[in-house]
Amino acid sequence: MGKSPAESILSGELMVLARLLTQVENGSPAGRLTLDELFPHTGKAHLVGVTGAPGTGKSSLVNQIALQYRKPVSANPKRVAIVAVDPSSPFTGGAVLGDRVRMRDLAGDPGVFIRSMASRGSLGGLAQATAAMVQAFDAAGFDVILIETVGAGQTEVDIARLAHTTLVVESPGMGDEIQAIKAGILEIADILVINKADLPGVENAELALRGMLGLSHPVEKVFRHHGQAMDLPASEPANSSVWVPPIQRTIATDGTGVGELVASIDQHAQHLRHSGDWIRRDRARLEGELEALLTETLVAQFRLSVPDVHYEEVVNQLVQRTLSPWEAVKVLLNGEA
Amino acid sequence: MGKSPAESILSGELMVLARLLTQVENGSPAGRLTLDELFPHTGKAHLVGVTGAPGTGKSSLVNQIALQYRKPVSANPKRVAIVAVDPSSPFTGGAVLGDRVRMRDLAGDPGVFIRSMASRGSLGGLAQATAAMVQAFDAAGFDVILIETVGAGQTEVDIARLAHTTLVVESPGMGDEIQAIKAGILEIADILVINKADLPGVENAELALRGMLGLSHPVEKVFRHHGQAMDLPASEPANSSVWVPPIQRTIATDGTGVGELVASIDQHAQHLRHSGDWIRRDRARLEGELEALLTETLVAQFRLSVPDVHYEEVVNQLVQRTLSPWEAVKVLLNGEA
Repeated sequence: MGKSPAESILSGELMVLARLLTQVENGSPAGRLTLDELFPHTGKAHLVGVTGAPGTGKSSLVNQIALQYRKPVSANPKRVAIVAVDPSSPFTGGAVLGDRVRMRDLAGDPGVFIRSMASRGSLGGLAQATAAMVQAFDAAGFDVILIETVGAGQTEVDIARLAHTTLVVESPGMGDEIQAIKAGILEIADILVINKADLPGVENAELALRGMLGLSHPVEKVFRHHGQAMDLPASEPANSSVWVPPIQRTIATDGTGVGELVASIDQHAQHLRHSGDWIRRDRARLEGELEALLTETLVAQFRLSVPDVHYEEVVNQLVQRTLSPWEAVKVLLNGEA
Repeated sequence: MGKSPAESILSGELMVLARLLTQVENGSPAGRLTLDELFPHTGKAHLVGVTGAPGTGKSSLVNQIALQYRKPVSANPKRVAIVAVDPSSPFTGGAVLGDRVRMRDLAGDPGVFIRSMASRGSLGGLAQATAAMVQAFDAAGFDVILIETVGAGQTEVDIARLAHTTLVVESPGMGDEIQAIKAGILEIADILVINKADLPGVENAELALRGMLGLSHPVEKVFRHHGQAMDLPASEPANSSVWVPPIQRTIATDGTGVGELVASIDQHAQHLRHSGDWIRRDRARLEGELEALLTETLVAQFRLSVPDVHYEEVVNQLVQRTLSPWEAVKVLLNGEA
């Protein structure tokens, strides 16, 4: 008797892991069974989300973070997986170029595994497939899983919610309009990164980010600069259970600041474990995943229970405006409008 | 006996319409009843989606399009509604600045109605609320409804699917990364707009867009420049039922090109009506809306049927990794893993 795919993955066979990831992306039932078998072995990896607008150099930064974790000088080099998600490319695989750049930097290191995924029209599907891939990497013993998303919209927020630690990447010279858009996404940031910190405007970018941090964390009037607390008001004693997002400057093209950034990421993991937030985020993530799967299953079961010809007839009445959308739902569920 | 809110809206009372829009945004049951009553009066308006990356000047362009439709010189000035959706601002109302700019340009004209909406964490909710608002404007007799979304991700694609005609707005000087991201969104474009056409790089932007159009419309090797067909290969006869997205240059700040753009939008509406695509898009939109409402209702009903304490227990087992997410779904639905 040979080993099951799950057993092979648990014993470190990367080719079997790669096959599972493809099954997950294709939604194959065999992949689901393997994931069920692997699930008890998950929950150990540190999940790090990296998001931000296009043009901020996120992909290069993610590569540098992976390299930093792999440095032989570090006392305890970690195994790193990268899941690159491109929800803004619904029809074509837009991550291909980024992959080639990655190959060059990280190829040949068995401690780094890279997988990219483009959306294929289904948002829910994308978040679900990402969650499943993250579980596969987690069970396979990767210590850090970097989840990179392109863009800065709701999708990215949803995918970032998968992570323990969320990095929001900015770059100098962002226009006012972009700043306004970021106001929302800043609120999910555990660490703010100003990449391309050698470009002019880096001081203004940091100033703007601090201003916005002040708005989105109004109770916590502590700002950290390169890890140092400053301006701590006397009326609000330092509270070690409050994490104030540090602002880290990096230059991904030459690695400047990436060591400090990785130190911050590790500090945040420690903070989560000490404060109990690690467990809370884990629970929230799994609860979200359960809800998504439940929804998908309920809808699939319901559609099987309704004859196609009846469903079509209801849609026809909708198109003819003899039933409103809500009335159509009532007809389908209860047989009456 | 007074009139019902729906009757008041049908007879042109804008204050009652405004109240309904607020009810729709808050998800109030009273709003739903009014929408049901209004639904038979929908299906007449031309729904125009406007999407594109931040910084392309979309909001100004949408204002100019509205102004163009209102011009007294036009034989038949149209009533225009603007629904501005900001899905990238999940926590704070990011559309406020845009609104103030709009007030200045369009205030005091009862033929233009502007409503903006920020996401509040729920993607499905946002698309649903947008659909409901569009129906309210449609029933209230607005001829053209401009649905503007910020950003260029999956959310925008989903919301653009609400429209008969989708404009994708670009501007000169887009970086390579942004170009790659747009490859997907271009495929939903009925009309491409290069705004800020007075900036350097406009020729390159148009060239890049034509190249990408060639990739995303590979069968249709016809390109139109300012509405004129060119380079029609002899082997492929002109087919009036095929719409090739024209590329329109505009300068929203002074109105240059907006007349031609509006002519293109109207041409596309005619094309849709002649080809039968108007009805097909209407049907697809309503079908999508039905599916979303059905999903929401199924999930809500199911959650009512499961005692909270049982649900919590299943989540606990998930967190302890004694049940996988799929096994948890099976337990909740069938009582067995």
